[in-house]
Amino acid sequence: MHILIIGAAGMVGRKLTNRLVADAQLGEAPITRLTLHDVIEPARVEASFTMETRASDFSAAGEAKRLLADKPDLIFHLAAIVSGEAEDDFDKGYRINLNGTWSLFEEIRALNRASAGAYKPRVVFTSSTGVFGGPYPPRIMDEFLQAPLTSYGTQKAIGELLLADYTRKGFFDGIGIRLPTICVRPGKPNKAASGFFSSIIREPLAGLEAVLPVSEDVRHWHASPRSAVAFLLHAATINGDAVGPRRTLSMPGVSCTVGEQIEALRNIAGDAVVARIRREPDEKIIRIVDGWPRDFDARRALSLGFKAESNFEDIIRIHIADELRG
Amino acid sequence: MHILIIGAAGMVGRKLTNRLVADAQLGEAPITRLTLHDVIEPARVEASFTMETRASDFSAAGEAKRLLADKPDLIFHLAAIVSGEAEDDFDKGYRINLNGTWSLFEEIRALNRASAGAYKPRVVFTSSTGVFGGPYPPRIMDEFLQAPLTSYGTQKAIGELLLADYTRKGFFDGIGIRLPTICVRPGKPNKAASGFFSSIIREPLAGLEAVLPVSEDVRHWHASPRSAVAFLLHAATINGDAVGPRRTLSMPGVSCTVGEQIEALRNIAGDAVVARIRREPDEKIIRIVDGWPRDFDARRALSLGFKAESNFEDIIRIHIADELRG
Repeated sequence: MHILIIGAAGMVGRKLTNRLVADAQLGEAPITRLTLHDVIEPARVEASFTMETRASDFSAAGEAKRLLADKPDLIFHLAAIVSGEAEDDFDKGYRINLNGTWSLFEEIRALNRASAGAYKPRVVFTSSTGVFGGPYPPRIMDEFLQAPLTSYGTQKAIGELLLADYTRKGFFDGIGIRLPTICVRPGKPNKAASGFFSSIIREPLAGLEAVLPVSEDVRHWHASPRSAVAFLLHAATINGDAVGPRRTLSMPGVSCTVGEQIEALRNIAGDAVVARIRREPDEKIIRIVDGWPRDFDARRALSLGFKAESNFEDIIRIHIADELRG
Repeated sequence: MHILIIGAAGMVGRKLTNRLVADAQLGEAPITRLTLHDVIEPARVEASFTMETRASDFSAAGEAKRLLADKPDLIFHLAAIVSGEAEDDFDKGYRINLNGTWSLFEEIRALNRASAGAYKPRVVFTSSTGVFGGPYPPRIMDEFLQAPLTSYGTQKAIGELLLADYTRKGFFDGIGIRLPTICVRPGKPNKAASGFFSSIIREPLAGLEAVLPVSEDVRHWHASPRSAVAFLLHAATINGDAVGPRRTLSMPGVSCTVGEQIEALRNIAGDAVVARIRREPDEKIIRIVDGWPRDFDARRALSLGFKAESNFEDIIRIHIADELRG
C-alpha cells in the first residue's frame, strides 16, 4: 500500500507518520511506500518501507498532478492555512484551502476517469469544528447546520461538500473528520487563540508559568493528539458503505470547562503545579473563544467506531506518557 | 437605481423583469436602469427607464468584469445549470454554478476593494431546497444541515457558504433564498422530474390530458411564481442587519400531497377537469421524488416578512389570474 500525506510537516502529520512507521501496515495491508508532502520539507523518519519527502505548494498549477502521478492508494489531506491566517489573508486562505483542495479532488477525478474507475483511492480529509457557527444548541448534533463564522470554516465546509459529491459520483472514496481542539499540543506556546487550552497544562507540568486569558467557566471540546491519529487511521480503514452519503463526521471528544481542566491537572500533579497558572484576562481571546462550539453529541462517529478519551485526566495522562516519557 | 439580473431569460427572471417594469421603483428608489443578462439574449420589455439586454456565458474569463463594469446597485443572481443537467454534465455544472458564481463574487470584491468599500451592492442569490438531502425530519427546520445528494445541490450549498463569507467580510451585502418548487409553472410540459406537479394542474385547466407518474400520497413543497417574484423583491430590500450572519433562508411555501393538489383542482374546476389526469407510474420519477424534501418550518423567513400562499387552492387561483387571464 502506497500512502500519501499532504500536510505531513504539521504536528498531527508528524504523529501520523510515526505511527505508520511503527505499525508498517494499515489494517491488514503492509505499507510499501509513504510519501510525505508539505510546503516545507517534512522530516524523514527511518522506516522499513520506501519513504520519500516532497516540498511544494500543493495548490500551484500542476502540483496535484505531480503529487498523484504514482496513484497512491490512500491520501491523507491534512494541509490547510489555519484559522487566523485565513482570516487575515483572504486570498491565501481561499487559494490553499479551497482551490488547493478542489484541484486535488479534480486530479483524482481525472485519474479515476482515465482508468475507467479502476483508480479510486480512499481520501481522508481533516475538517474542523470551525464549520459550525453560533448560536449553538447546548450540544451540537450530527444534523446541525454548517454556518461558519470564519473564512477558514467556510473553506472547510466547502471541502466537506466537495468530498461528499465527488464520493457520491464514485471518483474517489472520501471520509472527512472534524477534529476537536487537539489538547495537549506538544511544543512551545503559539499565538493561536486556542493555545491556552494546551499551555495551561503543558507549561505547569514542565515547571513553567502559563497564562490563562479566559474565565474558568469557558467550556470547550478536546481530544488528545493520540486520538487525532487514531481518528485518521480509523477513517482510512472504515467501510465507506457504512458511512453513507454524509461523508464528514464530527469526531468524539471531551467537553469540559477550563476549571475542570485545572482540577484534572491538580488531581494528577498537585497544587504546586496548578499554582503556575496565572490569570490574565485578554478581551480579544475571550471574544474569539466565546464564538466556539462547547459540546457535541458525536453519535454517528461513535456508532462507526471512532473513539476518544472519556475525561480530561486521560488527556493529561496521554500527554505525560507520549511527550514527557511518563 | 441600476439593477442587474443574471439569468433573466428564465421563467422567474422574466416575471421579475415584468414586475420591475410595472413598478418602476424598488422600495422608495426609482429604477433608472435595468440590465438583463442570460446565456441567450433576454426578451426586451418596454420600460420607462433605460433597459439593456446582454447575452454571454457569465462564467467565461472576463465576463463578470464586463457585467459589473457599471457597478449595478442591486444584482439578482438567478443563473444556474439546472439539477438534471448538472448531474449529467459534471464539468458544466461546476463551471457555471460554482466557478461562475465565485468569479462573480470575486469581481464584486475587487470593485469593493478598489473603491475602499464604497461599492457594496445587495446581491440576491437564488438557492434551492436541493441543498438538503435525506433522511429528513418531518419538517425541515432552519437549523437542519445542508447535506445535498446532487451536484446541483452541492453547488448551491457552496454558493450559500461563499455568499455568507463575502457578506461577513463586507465585500457585498448578500441574501440567499431557497425557493420551493415553483408551481404552477406556465408553459409547456418539460422533462424535469418535478414537471408533473405543475402539469397535473396546468394541462387539465387548458383542456389537455396530464400524466401523473407518482402516487397521490407524495408530499411536496410549493410556492407560486408570483410568490417567487415577491421573495426576490423582499430579499432585495430587506434590512441586512436583521438577517444576521446566516444569509440564506428557506422560503415559506405550501406543503401538500399530490392528492391534496388534485382535490384543490376539483374544488376550483370540477370533476370533468380532474378527469383529465391519467395515472401512469414512472419508477425513475418515483425514485427521484422520493429523495426530495416534503415540508419546511420556514420560521426565520416568515419572521423576516417573507410571505407565500397558505394553501394550494390559492396557488391554482394565482395561475388562473396570472396566466389564464382569469
